[in-house]
Amino acid sequence: MKNYIILIAILLSQNLFAQNTNTTKQEANIDVTITYENEQDNIKAIQAILQNQTAAWNKGDLEAFMAGYWKNDSLVFIGQSGPTYGYKNTLANYKKNYPDSNYMGKLHFDIVSIKPLSKNHFFVIGKWYLKRSVGDVNGVYTLVFRKTKTGWKIISDHSS
Amino acid sequence: MKNYIILIAILLSQNLFAQNTNTTKQEANIDVTITYENEQDNIKAIQAILQNQTAAWNKGDLEAFMAGYWKNDSLVFIGQSGPTYGYKNTLANYKKNYPDSNYMGKLHFDIVSIKPLSKNHFFVIGKWYLKRSVGDVNGVYTLVFRKTKTGWKIISDHSS
Repeated sequence: MKNYIILIAILLSQNLFAQNTNTTKQEANIDVTITYENEQDNIKAIQAILQNQTAAWNKGDLEAFMAGYWKNDSLVFIGQSGPTYGYKNTLANYKKNYPDSNYMGKLHFDIVSIKPLSKNHFFVIGKWYLKRSVGDVNGVYTLVFRKTKTGWKIISDHSS
Repeated sequence: MKNYIILIAILLSQNLFAQNTNTTKQEANIDVTITYENEQDNIKAIQAILQNQTAAWNKGDLEAFMAGYWKNDSLVFIGQSGPTYGYKNTLANYKKNYPDSNYMGKLHFDIVSIKPLSKNHFFVIGKWYLKRSVGDVNGVYTLVFRKTKTGWKIISDHSS
């Protein structure tokens, strides 16, 4: 019985230490750059999502482009007129503003930075360019990605 | 000795449980709205910073306005031309674009939402209005606030 309790105590203390280390890394008051577990893998996953978005856009497939976004009523897209909430409204806005391939044109992203805010949130800064017969347009975007049950998803997109 | 070990085991298991609860709340794959410790206090602190910023702006005091920002080279301000990095460059841009009280005018913020991304990061959506003799202007902003050693600070400002 005594040995059994010692074993439990050791196991618990090791688990506790592991939890504490984890917590310190992710939740401390952060004044310095820190790295998170699997940071490079997460960056690659987010880069792949953005590449898939441009490929889908350039095929004229808005639904496939939207796969990068959180399919939730709390998704927020911030454009010139302020925030639009929800996946459906965001898709509807894209369909309204880009009714056909002439308006969609060819999309190119220049990713400026992909940085972790926490283990489950990344902040992305990028530039977007649309080459179109109806007139080229370009701007800048900031995205908040969240790790969801179905992978990394954009929960907030501010495009200007 | 046996009782002592039992006590240690109980204490460790309680701590472990507390850590696990904490970790689950803050780091799980989040598909639902969750609340964080001191969330309302943090929201109030951020509201106060934004109020202080507008008060400082309306006194023509850009340095005091800048107190809301992270005093760090990694601060990023995203405007129409893309990102500007660093506290000094951000202040220099404000001084250049708002050289006197005619250009600064009177600032008003409509805060749309203040939401936690993690224990140490909040995401703010708002609208800004400048009432000026040289012409009114307005737009939308998204801010990422981080809890630093000197309090909540804006680490990213996308204004459009």
